[in-house]
Amino acid sequence: MAGSSFGNVFRITTWGESHGKAIGVVVDGCPAGLHLRERDIQIELNKRRPGQSPYCSPRDESDKVEILSGVFEDKTTGTPISLIVYNKDQRSKDYSEMQNIYRPGHADHAFDLKYGFRDHRGGGRSSGRETIGRVAGGAIAKKILASFGVEITTYTKAIGPFAVDMGNFDKEEIYNNPLRMPDSRVVPATEEYLRGLIKDGNSSGGLIECRVDGMPAGIGEPVFDKLDGTLARAVMSIGAVKGVEIGSGFEAAKRTGIENNDFYRMGTGGGIQKVSNHAGGTTGGISDGSPLVLRAAVKPTPSIHKMQHAVDKESGDIDLMIGGRHDPIIVPRAVIVVESMVALTILDLMLLNMGSRMEYLERVYGGPRA
Amino acid sequence: MAGSSFGNVFRITTWGESHGKAIGVVVDGCPAGLHLRERDIQIELNKRRPGQSPYCSPRDESDKVEILSGVFEDKTTGTPISLIVYNKDQRSKDYSEMQNIYRPGHADHAFDLKYGFRDHRGGGRSSGRETIGRVAGGAIAKKILASFGVEITTYTKAIGPFAVDMGNFDKEEIYNNPLRMPDSRVVPATEEYLRGLIKDGNSSGGLIECRVDGMPAGIGEPVFDKLDGTLARAVMSIGAVKGVEIGSGFEAAKRTGIENNDFYRMGTGGGIQKVSNHAGGTTGGISDGSPLVLRAAVKPTPSIHKMQHAVDKESGDIDLMIGGRHDPIIVPRAVIVVESMVALTILDLMLLNMGSRMEYLERVYGGPRA
Amino acid sequence: MAGSSFGNVFRITTWGESHGKAIGVVVDGCPAGLHLRERDIQIELNKRRPGQSPYCSPRDESDKVEILSGVFEDKTTGTPISLIVYNKDQRSKDYSEMQNIYRPGHADHAFDLKYGFRDHRGGGRSSGRETIGRVAGGAIAKKILASFGVEITTYTKAIGPFAVDMGNFDKEEIYNNPLRMPDSRVVPATEEYLRGLIKDGNSSGGLIECRVDGMPAGIGEPVFDKLDGTLARAVMSIGAVKGVEIGSGFEAAKRTGIENNDFYRMGTGGGIQKVSNHAGGTTGGISDGSPLVLRAAVKPTPSIHKMQHAVDKESGDIDLMIGGRHDPIIVPRAVIVVESMVALTILDLMLLNMGSRMEYLERVYGGPRA
Amino acid sequence: MAGSSFGNVFRITTWGESHGKAIGVVVDGCPAGLHLRERDIQIELNKRRPGQSPYCSPRDESDKVEILSGVFEDKTTGTPISLIVYNKDQRSKDYSEMQNIYRPGHADHAFDLKYGFRDHRGGGRSSGRETIGRVAGGAIAKKILASFGVEITTYTKAIGPFAVDMGNFDKEEIYNNPLRMPDSRVVPATEEYLRGLIKDGNSSGGLIECRVDGMPAGIGEPVFDKLDGTLARAVMSIGAVKGVEIGSGFEAAKRTGIENNDFYRMGTGGGIQKVSNHAGGTTGGISDGSPLVLRAAVKPTPSIHKMQHAVDKESGDIDLMIGGRHDPIIVPRAVIVVESMVALTILDLMLLNMGSRMEYLERVYGGPRA
Repeated sequence: MAGSSFGNVFRITTWGESHGKAIGVVVDGCPAGLHLRERDIQIELNKRRPGQSPYCSPRDESDKVEILSGVFEDKTTGTPISLIVYNKDQRSKDYSEMQNIYRPGHADHAFDLKYGFRDHRGGGRSSGRETIGRVAGGAIAKKILASFGVEITTYTKAIGPFAVDMGNFDKEEIYNNPLRMPDSRVVPATEEYLRGLIKDGNSSGGLIECRVDGMPAGIGEPVFDKLDGTLARAVMSIGAVKGVEIGSGFEAAKRTGIENNDFYRMGTGGGIQKVSNHAGGTTGGISDGSPLVLRAAVKPTPSIHKMQHAVDKESGDIDLMIGGRHDPIIVPRAVIVVESMVALTILDLMLLNMGSRMEYLERVYGGPRA
Repeated sequence: MAGSSFGNVFRITTWGESHGKAIGVVVDGCPAGLHLRERDIQIELNKRRPGQSPYCSPRDESDKVEILSGVFEDKTTGTPISLIVYNKDQRSKDYSEMQNIYRPGHADHAFDLKYGFRDHRGGGRSSGRETIGRVAGGAIAKKILASFGVEITTYTKAIGPFAVDMGNFDKEEIYNNPLRMPDSRVVPATEEYLRGLIKDGNSSGGLIECRVDGMPAGIGEPVFDKLDGTLARAVMSIGAVKGVEIGSGFEAAKRTGIENNDFYRMGTGGGIQKVSNHAGGTTGGISDGSPLVLRAAVKPTPSIHKMQHAVDKESGDIDLMIGGRHDPIIVPRAVIVVESMVALTILDLMLLNMGSRMEYLERVYGGPRA
Repeated sequence: MAGSSFGNVFRITTWGESHGKAIGVVVDGCPAGLHLRERDIQIELNKRRPGQSPYCSPRDESDKVEILSGVFEDKTTGTPISLIVYNKDQRSKDYSEMQNIYRPGHADHAFDLKYGFRDHRGGGRSSGRETIGRVAGGAIAKKILASFGVEITTYTKAIGPFAVDMGNFDKEEIYNNPLRMPDSRVVPATEEYLRGLIKDGNSSGGLIECRVDGMPAGIGEPVFDKLDGTLARAVMSIGAVKGVEIGSGFEAAKRTGIENNDFYRMGTGGGIQKVSNHAGGTTGGISDGSPLVLRAAVKPTPSIHKMQHAVDKESGDIDLMIGGRHDPIIVPRAVIVVESMVALTILDLMLLNMGSRMEYLERVYGGPRA
Repeated sequence: MAGSSFGNVFRITTWGESHGKAIGVVVDGCPAGLHLRERDIQIELNKRRPGQSPYCSPRDESDKVEILSGVFEDKTTGTPISLIVYNKDQRSKDYSEMQNIYRPGHADHAFDLKYGFRDHRGGGRSSGRETIGRVAGGAIAKKILASFGVEITTYTKAIGPFAVDMGNFDKEEIYNNPLRMPDSRVVPATEEYLRGLIKDGNSSGGLIECRVDGMPAGIGEPVFDKLDGTLARAVMSIGAVKGVEIGSGFEAAKRTGIENNDFYRMGTGGGIQKVSNHAGGTTGGISDGSPLVLRAAVKPTPSIHKMQHAVDKESGDIDLMIGGRHDPIIVPRAVIVVESMVALTILDLMLLNMGSRMEYLERVYGGPRA
């Protein structure tokens, strides 16, 4: 229980259901003195908003964020920042017909098994709207990270069988197309594929990749709080994610040692550098100064417009055809959510790791006194 | 910091370095009244012991465990159980030549970046010996889980290019061969492959699969403490693991909704059942009554007997050939470690989730009083 | 940092400043299936509302609570319950004159030392309004506890030199007088004393006592998470509390063993009973079946209408006379806050302790399977 | 459960029973680079050792500490430090006669209520020997604090009716007399009092005071993680402590605002100073630059050599006379335990608070990059 918080020192606590009055997040532990306005957060929230392309559900969610506490004269005060987004588009539709039905791929049945009953209007806490709080908290985390030169780039790596060619990688392209792909050449065929799925009432999975440049070295702990594991938990806590890998990831399972080891060489500037980055920026659970690279596997949206075998708690086996319109692909909208979870993880670990050496305590507390 | 503990209610805290006096673990929060003897733990520890096959390093580690506290007349008392294993085979060899060298694929450099210096004898906390504490704690967790009918089966799924054919799956076979593969037919070719790597001074990665039968439904929390994410963190906290997936995992990224959704049907006994299990036993982050299925990608052992580019902190670029003998494959020994982390995760979540319904509180605290 | 949460399994996270838009709390980990409406919470909030007597500041705070999430058809769903109270009486008054002044007894200076600056309008997070979230969360905790027969009684034990005579104890009287004293005979003299302090621009401290009947035995942990210590932290986290004692408390320091030990006798019903209760209901950190008894020392309100030595950050030493009206006594309003913190602590420990015996796990998870 | 750990970033986990093989502690999160040898810890452990005076039980406990991990070439490595003390004086005596008896003032009954049974040899986890781990961990914390000029002075303030006259305060005297009183004039009468109690088979309670000089300002959080509350929990987690107060403490309950407020004046060196210190060094839960002052009330030792009413689980009411020799006063030995818990609390909060301002992050992570 009490599973709605993430982070130890920089901690977000999210709340709200898809069909409740509002959705929100409390960001606790934000350092004092950060310049922060509502628009800093709004810009990031807009990136996850549906209704932006034919590939997202048309529910109109303007998702206007309001800061309720923790900021004074545009600066954070060190006290909790409460953010709220009212649910504007709560259709008055009667959901009672879904009350007893367990939809394939949804958490309806699991919720009933756990709690004995559930809020059957929409997805409840499993709704994609829960991610609003993550993205809002992530916006603040990214603002702090940016001030230390930490830059996170996240994009759709593949949708169904269509994968980005990293040789064509163009960062500027990511938010130029509705699929968040950094390769304009693969976009048209992928869009064609998605249009076919829409017509068929079907949906697609995909792959998201995240790269962190300017990562400070020494972040993460050697044993249970490894940077890798903490990131894996963070990213896997996103509803549709079914797998996470770092660096060479599942490829490493097929490789030999000589293929997978990263050699070292002295850099031109005198620093020590890895010649390759199969480790994906973390060795022994600790950031090693190379860019962090991770990928998340996103399952296809379970809400499809096709006949499926389901169960009605009262009447038993049924054949179910779910109406309405739904996203044929969640991946483009999940890109900013993955980025937010990575940012929240890195910042929290940075704050937790500030006391890892006597030397760092001295920098903050002024060192030995006479 | 303080990253040496795992779990909230059933919590293990491990300590010890490869070349220190001893390795140990404190198991806190174990329910009182469990029958427990040293041999319950020893049996599991023996499964991770090296020196059992040509594919493991020959260091003799009998790893005899001793219970120092928390057990009285063969029953747990509810107080912390301290377990210790003395390091018997600490060779007196001089490690000072490695003091300034950063070995490819090892955490030497990352440790120096984080702490400013390191214990350069062997792997320190990054050594495989740290997993002794995990396996010892996992042995206790599995004993409790077994009493509730939760059974965990873990095995090598693939080594390099050689994968188990699940059509030949034979659970009894797992501990019959040194590779922990549940398919006797693939073992000879895989052994041949490993012998080739040994001769070449090289090593191999591999895949481990874990399946949990009898999993209670309703375990895990809907948002950040999802069963999936908590498992991912647990398994990814093992040194060589670079990727984790649940159910269809990375395959799901390529599928369509109709392919990936699990249909429901009424079971013959009246219960609701999933026809397939692409979800791998968890929906919306909550266990759904189906078997839990996860896979971990293990990178090849970085210690190889081949010439590599490395760096000496003082003299700069060097060509490094590491001597001694090392494991050409870590996968068979990591099988029991993955199983232990899965057991520790499930038990801790079960304990945390005992109060998820008013009904459960009533079962423990006797319900409403007159 | 991240210090705005309380509890592990039943966890509240409070947010909001006295002069911000709103004050709120997120209650996470509430068991599913509890009947809950806004009025359950409103009744408790009304108990801490100022403007109820001449001894409280007249600021009009109707403090109407709104449930934003976590409740569906008047039942808790197991997901986070977000509660909000808008700040209605934010006077537009210019506070800038207080920007550089450090008021005696207030946290102004400490906030500046910690964060580098502060929200100088009112008390910020140190305002009594922060306790709204605690009382709202406590209302839910008490509702659950009540269903298990746990009943908490809290009252003013003393104000300045005037103490309740426990021989006259009358529970019904507590909310009959504005001082929350369970002894109608001491009230008139105490009111007289407070009127004198008001006239003089001065204020008074006092003592609050809390008694918990129907406390389940076995709650609390033997070492660091003792029931006593956890309660002490909870109660001492209330702004004006400077001391906490359990049972005979500070009196015990003057006693001998034979005076302080509680003897045992078999009860008439066959159970084992303590003849006295100097331990205050907890032995070895664990609840022992007797009523829990604790007291909190509350310092006098620092906001007084008298000339005081203070400092202006820019101009140095000043003589300060603070205007406006303030509470001459905070104790009666703090009664419900102490009660809330005790309720939150007990419930959280009850939830954490559900797995302390194998037997309890069996009650929830159905015990050994065939 | 899992209540054997204390601290978040600098965390100790203690284990061991009075009559088990050994007692120990794992110190996790100690910053790397601290010079540390066994004797640094041994010196502090010797301060809690019994058998030093007629007022302590004569059990011979040399309590020799051994460092098992986390230190390399006399420097901490940042990894967990495991410390062990073997129990040398485990008398083979048969304790089975005590198996069913609930001794007044002891935790026997509470343990049985919680766990269903108990280790009936001596006090188990409630034994004073459990504090060995606290003192060992505290020794390391104090060594770090000392390097920042934080100095903790702890002493017996009163025993029964005999109190130290603070006008005679002499720090050097504390460890000169067996009672740990900083006033040599009160010692003879107090010793006389204790000798009388010994003769009578009785015991005494007392008061311990702790003062922290050189406390960094800004430590502690405004709401639930106040410095005061965190200290209260820490000190109240010591077995015999029944009350804690900070600064004017329970006295404040009787005072008026003008008596209790601390005025401010500019110091001669330009800094802002409090003229008095009724707050005891913490305002709004945050350290304010003044010395921290707290007191703990210690109950009389429950083990007395007098006839008492008790209960035998099987035979019912009994009259009990406990044999053997026991401490007539625990206070002098508890002095170092209180000091250790204060040190552990302060250091952990200092580490947790390192990220409270953007400015502090910049000091550690190098600030904005070009």
